[in-house]
Amino acid sequence: MRVSLPKKTLADVLSHIERIIPQRSSNPALSLLRLELAEQSFTLTGSNMELDIRATLKADVESEGIIALPAHVFSQVVRSLPGELVSLEVQEREVHITSGSYHTNLQLSDDSQTVIPDFPPAASYTGSLEANVVSAALGQVRYAAAVAEYQAVMRGVKLELADDKTRAVATNGFRLAYYHSEVSSGLAGELILPAKSVDEITRIFADGTVQLAFEDTTLSLRNAIYSLNVNVMEGEFPNYNAVIPQEFALRVRLDAKELVDIVQRVALMADKNSNNRIDIFVKNGQMQLSAEGGYGRSQEALDVNQEGSESEMLLAYNASFLLEALRPVSGNIYLSFPAPTSPTVLTSEKDSGYLAMVVPLSL
Amino acid sequence: MRVSLPKKTLADVLSHIERIIPQRSSNPALSLLRLELAEQSFTLTGSNMELDIRATLKADVESEGIIALPAHVFSQVVRSLPGELVSLEVQEREVHITSGSYHTNLQLSDDSQTVIPDFPPAASYTGSLEANVVSAALGQVRYAAAVAEYQAVMRGVKLELADDKTRAVATNGFRLAYYHSEVSSGLAGELILPAKSVDEITRIFADGTVQLAFEDTTLSLRNAIYSLNVNVMEGEFPNYNAVIPQEFALRVRLDAKELVDIVQRVALMADKNSNNRIDIFVKNGQMQLSAEGGYGRSQEALDVNQEGSESEMLLAYNASFLLEALRPVSGNIYLSFPAPTSPTVLTSEKDSGYLAMVVPLSL
Repeated sequence: MRVSLPKKTLADVLSHIERIIPQRSSNPALSLLRLELAEQSFTLTGSNMELDIRATLKADVESEGIIALPAHVFSQVVRSLPGELVSLEVQEREVHITSGSYHTNLQLSDDSQTVIPDFPPAASYTGSLEANVVSAALGQVRYAAAVAEYQAVMRGVKLELADDKTRAVATNGFRLAYYHSEVSSGLAGELILPAKSVDEITRIFADGTVQLAFEDTTLSLRNAIYSLNVNVMEGEFPNYNAVIPQEFALRVRLDAKELVDIVQRVALMADKNSNNRIDIFVKNGQMQLSAEGGYGRSQEALDVNQEGSESEMLLAYNASFLLEALRPVSGNIYLSFPAPTSPTVLTSEKDSGYLAMVVPLSL
Repeated sequence: MRVSLPKKTLADVLSHIERIIPQRSSNPALSLLRLELAEQSFTLTGSNMELDIRATLKADVESEGIIALPAHVFSQVVRSLPGELVSLEVQEREVHITSGSYHTNLQLSDDSQTVIPDFPPAASYTGSLEANVVSAALGQVRYAAAVAEYQAVMRGVKLELADDKTRAVATNGFRLAYYHSEVSSGLAGELILPAKSVDEITRIFADGTVQLAFEDTTLSLRNAIYSLNVNVMEGEFPNYNAVIPQEFALRVRLDAKELVDIVQRVALMADKNSNNRIDIFVKNGQMQLSAEGGYGRSQEALDVNQEGSESEMLLAYNASFLLEALRPVSGNIYLSFPAPTSPTVLTSEKDSGYLAMVVPLSL
């Protein structure tokens, strides 16, 4: 059982699979990588029970077989190899790794112990999306998901697939982000993906087309090399449509980058133990930002394009929430204020799909 | 009391002083920065009791005075300023910081609380060294110093100043590094500098000439902007000259970078819980490196230029110690082996001042 392939190809694939494999686990099977050699192909699989990743590479294979290896040690060895080619040869209970003048005999693990993920047959992949839609939809809203264990499904990103849309939504109750695209995947359904699995999806599918399959509690995604199974989360996602304000008393247009810089500077004086509060006062086409805490106070003003029925408004925010909502956007943005106590809506002039909502602090 | 100066100049100086100031301390005076405005000069000082740093900048000063500020908050504010100029104006118990459209009022601390370091008068600086000698001597040996508290003066770098030499030495008992220069500083004496203070010295004095003064238990260093007081450590440094072997049974010449890469690769299989052991076998102009641990074993060979009375030798090392000894050098190096149980000596063909010694593991 022997295979030879470019080091870089193998290292790239391992970098993606290695990320999901726990360094330590009470279940030793989870720390293993499974390698399958078949005619003309070399397949690597790993799993963390929430997410399975499989990568299939074309390769010169001399005989067939299946082995299991400690994933992180194998990845470290491959990354450090001196040659451009690496050859793997299985000899009894070891795999012999050779590259240039370097030789390693790595002990095999018992392959009956490995987790063997099962991927849907090709015919099940009835949907598809361009990778840039997947990464825009999931990648831009992911920050808004909750972190705490007790927040259950709010730790996930909701994906809505329908004939006329692909939409991703995340919220932790104090802020919300959604991304709406009129592109259809060809699938229909609503599912909640764990935020950590979302990170791996956006990392792996950088370009090209992603094929999709959804059955029972698993969303499967694949391209020419990778197949992923994502276990969806069970539970009721909050009815977010009801809380997004539709009417606004005041709206400003300004540059996202400029606002980010100012919020960061002004927030240096904000009290970290008291919501990291920053105040925003809009009047006469000017936006005045200020903060105050134990070290002192700070303020900065910028000119904005102002419109709406109200001539001025004073609001307060957690500066971190504002900064996170601003991170996915660039260029001109709109901040729409219904009232000082209602959620503020952030939209982008350039990317009409993105919408973020931040709940102000009480004044 | 008012001063105006370029943001970049101020930020650079703060980045050096801020590093030594503790984020939290039982002595609040240590977390403060002292600013002194005098005619045409603006002076910043900070201290951590082991090391004092003073930076003096030329600046437009409108009136004189002394204030104290929380160092880290002030540094953060300066780093984030939008404009190229920053102006500081003291108003009662606040300093008003303005840059572009940004304004901060930072509360002053009670300046009676600050530590006020005292620097020697100009006439005391009777010695001098080029900054590149200082950084080569101290910077290249610093890694070999001990870390553990109980190792007392071995946590420092010994500096030997004499008519005919400037020499720096560090050791933790298992390895040693020294750097010898025939340049004289004009001072005479032996002193042990804390390794952490050594880091700041090499960071601050990057080029030009460094003036030196040594009185009682303090080494002072200065250039046009910075003055440093380093509290020297008290105690007896080991007699390292007695342990550096002078005769060798075998010596090899090889490329430092190539050896580093191979040691890193081969050591992947080494047992981290058992000295991270890597074996080296030299014979017939070949050096064979190998390691073995719970995951398997690895080996790699390279051609070397071999000489000496012994035709072969087998040695074992802690791979990390070998790598650290190799880090300061590049190009051709010599490894000189007196015997498998005696310290190995590493020297550089290019930089004759550097010498490292690594004690082998027992086979």
